[in-house]
Amino acid sequence: MTTVTTAQATAVLDAAQEKAEAMGIKQNIAVVDAGANLLAFRRMDGAWLGSVDIAITKAKTARYFDMPTGELGEMSQPGGSLYSIEHSNGGLVSFPGGIPLEDGDGQIIGAVGVSGSTVGNDHAVAQAGAEALS
Amino acid sequence: MTTVTTAQATAVLDAAQEKAEAMGIKQNIAVVDAGANLLAFRRMDGAWLGSVDIAITKAKTARYFDMPTGELGEMSQPGGSLYSIEHSNGGLVSFPGGIPLEDGDGQIIGAVGVSGSTVGNDHAVAQAGAEALS
Amino acid sequence: MTTVTTAQATAVLDAAQEKAEAMGIKQNIAVVDAGANLLAFRRMDGAWLGSVDIAITKAKTARYFDMPTGELGEMSQPGGSLYSIEHSNGGLVSFPGGIPLEDGDGQIIGAVGVSGSTVGNDHAVAQAGAEALS
Amino acid sequence: MTTVTTAQATAVLDAAQEKAEAMGIKQNIAVVDAGANLLAFRRMDGAWLGSVDIAITKAKTARYFDMPTGELGEMSQPGGSLYSIEHSNGGLVSFPGGIPLEDGDGQIIGAVGVSGSTVGNDHAVAQAGAEALS
Repeated sequence: MTTVTTAQATAVLDAAQEKAEAMGIKQNIAVVDAGANLLAFRRMDGAWLGSVDIAITKAKTARYFDMPTGELGEMSQPGGSLYSIEHSNGGLVSFPGGIPLEDGDGQIIGAVGVSGSTVGNDHAVAQAGAEALS
Repeated sequence: MTTVTTAQATAVLDAAQEKAEAMGIKQNIAVVDAGANLLAFRRMDGAWLGSVDIAITKAKTARYFDMPTGELGEMSQPGGSLYSIEHSNGGLVSFPGGIPLEDGDGQIIGAVGVSGSTVGNDHAVAQAGAEALS
Repeated sequence: MTTVTTAQATAVLDAAQEKAEAMGIKQNIAVVDAGANLLAFRRMDGAWLGSVDIAITKAKTARYFDMPTGELGEMSQPGGSLYSIEHSNGGLVSFPGGIPLEDGDGQIIGAVGVSGSTVGNDHAVAQAGAEALS
Repeated sequence: MTTVTTAQATAVLDAAQEKAEAMGIKQNIAVVDAGANLLAFRRMDGAWLGSVDIAITKAKTARYFDMPTGELGEMSQPGGSLYSIEHSNGGLVSFPGGIPLEDGDGQIIGAVGVSGSTVGNDHAVAQAGAEALS
């Protein structure tokens, strides 16, 4: 199992924080490894306290299902094929902000989760973090 | 990080209870500090037992995201940007009744949560509590 | 079921806090009603954050078994008749600081729990709170 | 309530990791703020997965009671005054490796928790992290 390293995870946090600062927002940023276990986390000064759990859970959710959390959320709406999947795994987060991390060969090696602003901003910051590995 | 004091929290409870008595309703009232940790709680005689947890969680939710709980609830509906956020943080409450507490400079120093009546009444009582600090 | 009232619970908090201030210590103080549901809580400025849960759980434990928590702890030691009872009820606290509250006829109508100092001090402060009802 | 900043927390992680590398060990390192909420976390490559939760909980425990976790553990043994306290707060860790973080005036502003080696090594690495703020 190829997995993201501690040094790579720190690079993801730094890239995400840099993006957040450029956007003028305060974020919680989490990275999980290929085993969906927490590898690195950073809360920017003044970022929402409730987003600690959400950032970590977005990262886990993205690795659990190897897709961006927003894609899962499209399927978990009332009437959707995965309705109520948020109840599983001790709680999932199914709105945007979690993205799988890939190595140069396109293999998924972990995930990043971001929470603290609008879901559009969260996704953009997570994307900036993920691109630190490309 | 400035935080609400014990004396201020008691003043919030007293103001909220006074408002509830004037409205003829029975409430659970909770105050959390700037770190979202419980600081003060009071259940009025005969108020709903199930609202103990809801009042505390409303206060935590309001501080977790620095907004009234009802505003969060508008975004957590099916199809909304934060659908299912209630599953995070070991359970959130996203209907009205939780309000951030601010000091004289508009800095958030904690939150108050009220539960036991209609959400409109809960919000009004929480507002009365929050105004005890202004 | 006769139960402690909100006014009585506030009197218990006030008496306990006055005792704690006289002793120069910072306490978390909780009161549960006859149904073992939280009725009132107060954390003094600067008191331990980890004692929020412990004070509430001491009060619940004292009412669950209608005895001071320290007495339960004597039976829950390794080799004791109630060894590991702390695992039940989602977690109990079995060291001193929780005391049943009695009305004038000796009937148990709730309990008080105190945490934030040595167990001896916690018990003394809880005792001062309980005596507010006599 | 003064709290540790994100920049300070990163400095604590860096100092702790540097110490761990000098000792030839692999660690999980967590920092919580003054409100006992997670602020920063790093797992070194190959460090124990089970220590993610332990490092975070050691940091929380140290802030919950404003003392090194090992001191709490001396009181939580069978027959000790705080026997079974680990069952409170949804689970505590009471062996060494968690240390309060202090600012230059000796005020507690958060805590660091380390897990992944012997408790002696964990404590030494946490100490190195804490000293980054002095």
